Amino acid sequence: MSEPAITAAMLVIGDEILSGRTKDKNIGYLADYLTERGIDLREARIVPDIEEEIVAALNAMRARYTYVFTSGGIGPTHDDITADSIAKALGVGIDYDERALAMMRERYAPGELNEARMRMARIPFGATLIENPISKAPGFMIGNVITMAGVPSIMQAMLDDVSQYLASGVKVMVETIDAKGLPEGAYASALAEIDKAHPGVSIGSYPSFTGAGFRNQIVVRGRDRAAIDAALADIRALLDRTTGDNAPA
Amino acid sequence: MSEPAITAAMLVIGDEILSGRTKDKNIGYLADYLTERGIDLREARIVPDIEEEIVAALNAMRARYTYVFTSGGIGPTHDDITADSIAKALGVGIDYDERALAMMRERYAPGELNEARMRMARIPFGATLIENPISKAPGFMIGNVITMAGVPSIMQAMLDDVSQYLASGVKVMVETIDAKGLPEGAYASALAEIDKAHPGVSIGSYPSFTGAGFRNQIVVRGRDRAAIDAALADIRALLDRTTGDNAPA
Repeated sequence: MSEPAITAAMLVIGDEILSGRTKDKNIGYLADYLTERGIDLREARIVPDIEEEIVAALNAMRARYTYVFTSGGIGPTHDDITADSIAKALGVGIDYDERALAMMRERYAPGELNEARMRMARIPFGATLIENPISKAPGFMIGNVITMAGVPSIMQAMLDDVSQYLASGVKVMVETIDAKGLPEGAYASALAEIDKAHPGVSIGSYPSFTGAGFRNQIVVRGRDRAAIDAALADIRALLDRTTGDNAPA
Repeated sequence: MSEPAITAAMLVIGDEILSGRTKDKNIGYLADYLTERGIDLREARIVPDIEEEIVAALNAMRARYTYVFTSGGIGPTHDDITADSIAKALGVGIDYDERALAMMRERYAPGELNEARMRMARIPFGATLIENPISKAPGFMIGNVITMAGVPSIMQAMLDDVSQYLASGVKVMVETIDAKGLPEGAYASALAEIDKAHPGVSIGSYPSFTGAGFRNQIVVRGRDRAAIDAALADIRALLDRTTGDNAPA
């Protein structure tokens, strides 16, 4: 349990997310993907298609985390500026990449590979390519930065290729206890004591609205089975001795 | 059109979003809400339930934008540390607030208003309260920071109360043109020229996967009707003279 954690951040790039036009699905997907691999997603940011914003966010994140994943902005149109922004952030050159062009020639006839599509083969120097089985134009990895497309189906396919390169950590185990309709306020003080008494796990309490009413769930997360089981036992005993109306808090 | 833009950022607080357990819906909702009011959402971040992370993100954002909205971490349990973190970031005190207690007494009998629930009445000094018609414990506004609950239905209800306090900007008009099944690569270079020729608008091209195949849409955004119409005319003419297969790029 004393191994250093493997950490990650997610940078979503695109005006369309911030305007509300497109609802992001990539953060939630990546969160599940990383949790499954024992990698801790520590932060996510959404920034517009502005070079300085991308560079600043990327440099802040890549200095702090094992991996930084990006999604969005690697298509052929003028608002797709992610590859150039990443090259700038890392201080490396960028140009048409023969490996990327070869991938794209599988898809485009010579006459179709015009200037705009060629832009998708501009890759920062020194990057490893990420395969795109759906539309061929690749993502890439350079340093600890992993750059993927914004279309969810393509990002997900790229992650399948990325998996082989990622270190995996000790997977976090998660146990969820339904709070039996109790409001958080009825058990919060005692739960805080249990949290203090079990430093090897993290305990959260999460209300949600189900339509039929509010439901609270208590979640215990940790990497040590015995520590989790000890916390669970204390929480179950707490809920058994607590009463209250169905309500969020 | 020369009025300064009214800007905003969103800070989502909660381990459960970063672990994938809960999928954030608040950023997308707020994005739509702000766009409707002519306020530009410029950045969003998701951070864990860690005081230093909340303080650092909040201070970075409140210095840059007209408003910073937060969601999450204002319930009664030990992992709800948002109010204290905001007081710390702003360098103000925090204590039980008589107005907040009065709101909560509408809901809780004297014997029910225990220490944990009382925590929800801890409000930074000088804040304006935000009404919570669903579960009573209020949000609050202090300086340019607007703090709301994480449960989507409660956050949305709080935004209804917040509306009265927000400046509204000149609303951005959005026009979407379906790219008639054309791949982006077939029109990207010419679209870049149109984008340059119309500096008064922003033009984006967005692929999506519909199940029946890929669909590209070109979106023109701006605050000046005549400028938008001029760009739309050029884009329609471009699409009329472009051919290509149905594909994303």
